[in-house]
Amino acid sequence: MSQRLSKKETAAWLLERDGFLVCTHRRPDGDALGSAAALCAGLRAAGKEAYVLENPETTERYLEYVADYLAPEDYEPLAVITVDTADAGILQINAGPYAEAVDLCIDHHVSNTDYAAWTCLDTGRAACGEVVYAVLLELNGNISAACALPLYVALATDTGCFQYANVNADTFETAAALIRAGADHWAVNKKLFRTKSRGRMALDGALLSGLQFHYGEQLAVAVVTLDLMAHCGVTEDDLDDIANIPNQAEGVRVGIVVRELEDGSCKISVRAAPGVNANEICQQFGGGGHPGAAGCTVDMPPDEAAAMLVAAAGAALG
Amino acid sequence: MSQRLSKKETAAWLLERDGFLVCTHRRPDGDALGSAAALCAGLRAAGKEAYVLENPETTERYLEYVADYLAPEDYEPLAVITVDTADAGILQINAGPYAEAVDLCIDHHVSNTDYAAWTCLDTGRAACGEVVYAVLLELNGNISAACALPLYVALATDTGCFQYANVNADTFETAAALIRAGADHWAVNKKLFRTKSRGRMALDGALLSGLQFHYGEQLAVAVVTLDLMAHCGVTEDDLDDIANIPNQAEGVRVGIVVRELEDGSCKISVRAAPGVNANEICQQFGGGGHPGAAGCTVDMPPDEAAAMLVAAAGAALG
Repeated sequence: MSQRLSKKETAAWLLERDGFLVCTHRRPDGDALGSAAALCAGLRAAGKEAYVLENPETTERYLEYVADYLAPEDYEPLAVITVDTADAGILQINAGPYAEAVDLCIDHHVSNTDYAAWTCLDTGRAACGEVVYAVLLELNGNISAACALPLYVALATDTGCFQYANVNADTFETAAALIRAGADHWAVNKKLFRTKSRGRMALDGALLSGLQFHYGEQLAVAVVTLDLMAHCGVTEDDLDDIANIPNQAEGVRVGIVVRELEDGSCKISVRAAPGVNANEICQQFGGGGHPGAAGCTVDMPPDEAAAMLVAAAGAALG
Repeated sequence: MSQRLSKKETAAWLLERDGFLVCTHRRPDGDALGSAAALCAGLRAAGKEAYVLENPETTERYLEYVADYLAPEDYEPLAVITVDTADAGILQINAGPYAEAVDLCIDHHVSNTDYAAWTCLDTGRAACGEVVYAVLLELNGNISAACALPLYVALATDTGCFQYANVNADTFETAAALIRAGADHWAVNKKLFRTKSRGRMALDGALLSGLQFHYGEQLAVAVVTLDLMAHCGVTEDDLDDIANIPNQAEGVRVGIVVRELEDGSCKISVRAAPGVNANEICQQFGGGGHPGAAGCTVDMPPDEAAAMLVAAAGAALG
């Protein structure tokens, strides 16, 4: 069992140590990378040596926020910290021996497995970045602009830019404090939420125009073929969050995206409203996930895959 | 010239009077209607009689927020107030004689023409709802849940749910205060930002597929004809935030939406990145707004309107 630390105790824990390496999780998102960068910036402001372990799955989208903090290859940390990582099993793929030797975990997931020697957990926060913010405020007495920017990235990305159900008054207050501390929120919003490549705009246009509805319009399906991607000029990098297009349609309870892959198989993403279980639908085809969001990969052409998933979702809709 | 009032002076002005009628602008948005509803709720909490003048162009989307405050047909106000209305010329179409007799204007537009006898203007606020919030705080000493909900609608809709460039630390602090005062922000977000009608999805598909780019792709234009709207099955109620589609394209500095109206004229919306002034572009055609977001109405067919605006925006791009 991990020893729980308050934010104040976490700050004291950090002050007593030095030589920090901060690790993130597989397929790192803005909250993980933003939290890691901010923690390093804050530790350095406190006179400490601190680095982020480069995550090979970091996308171009988030690279700039963490680039200044990447550890040299031969770095030998004295203390290993994880952020936004609920379990050692989902640590970044190159975590290697660190996975078994995490000193401190800072997180906000209810599913946290207490795998670290010490844990600072606040499940009432929408983003791990909010927990890091509170720790850094205890550590340094203030938040520098260098900390505020990646913390804003963490906060904004984990809340869908303040749209999701996890947002509360604290979230908004933290955002206000980060802006007052110098975070250029508009630059982040513009880049992460309000910019689409021309190819992606064309693809969204085609998908929205071509949505197929079934079962009294409770089910919407979008099919992304390799031909369509080539026609629109998009690559894998342009497909962020594409799984959330069909389920925005009014009245839709299950949204499905079928994406043709180079090897002839199809990647399926299912998004379901409460009352329908996306995980159960995808488990039938060897996949899984959460009740609200799940996926699987099936070895057949897109049209067949779509028909199969429509039938399975229809059974789930009852 | 109108007499300017601070928020505190505005609260005192309101306390000295009674029998209020609050008017909004043509094609009222969430900020106008939310501000009007909240102002009525706050005035009633202060023991005053206050109504909103029913705006015949109110869409189904916003009706619920204002429904409890609509004035009886024979209501004879003792004081006429406008909210979010920069000029008497854009007052709601049934404002009639009130347009010439506005006592108090509460607004946040830099283009405000000082048409009212008294004006409470704060151009540093993202939404008129924030100005109303500050006035009500002076008036009542607190914000009730009945005020907080429409104020959240005002704030969220005028900032694209906290994504636009007009957001600042004050915006987030006001949002936090409104949630603490009891605004159900998730219900508003789900309804206004995370649900699209099928018609709107089809329209978005058509617009994204049909964007026209100019000036090295710094300018993007979308044209919404009556034919396209009929084809997609959308009404006025489905067009929220449509002005922000073209300017999402990567590299675009000016985004223009031209919308054909039933009377043969066109409503133009211009969105501009810092360095280009949308207000100045629209003022050339009798409109106005903010540097980042402005509009005008021109009396010509959509293709001609698009060409005229492309030329004007090209001059502004330099």
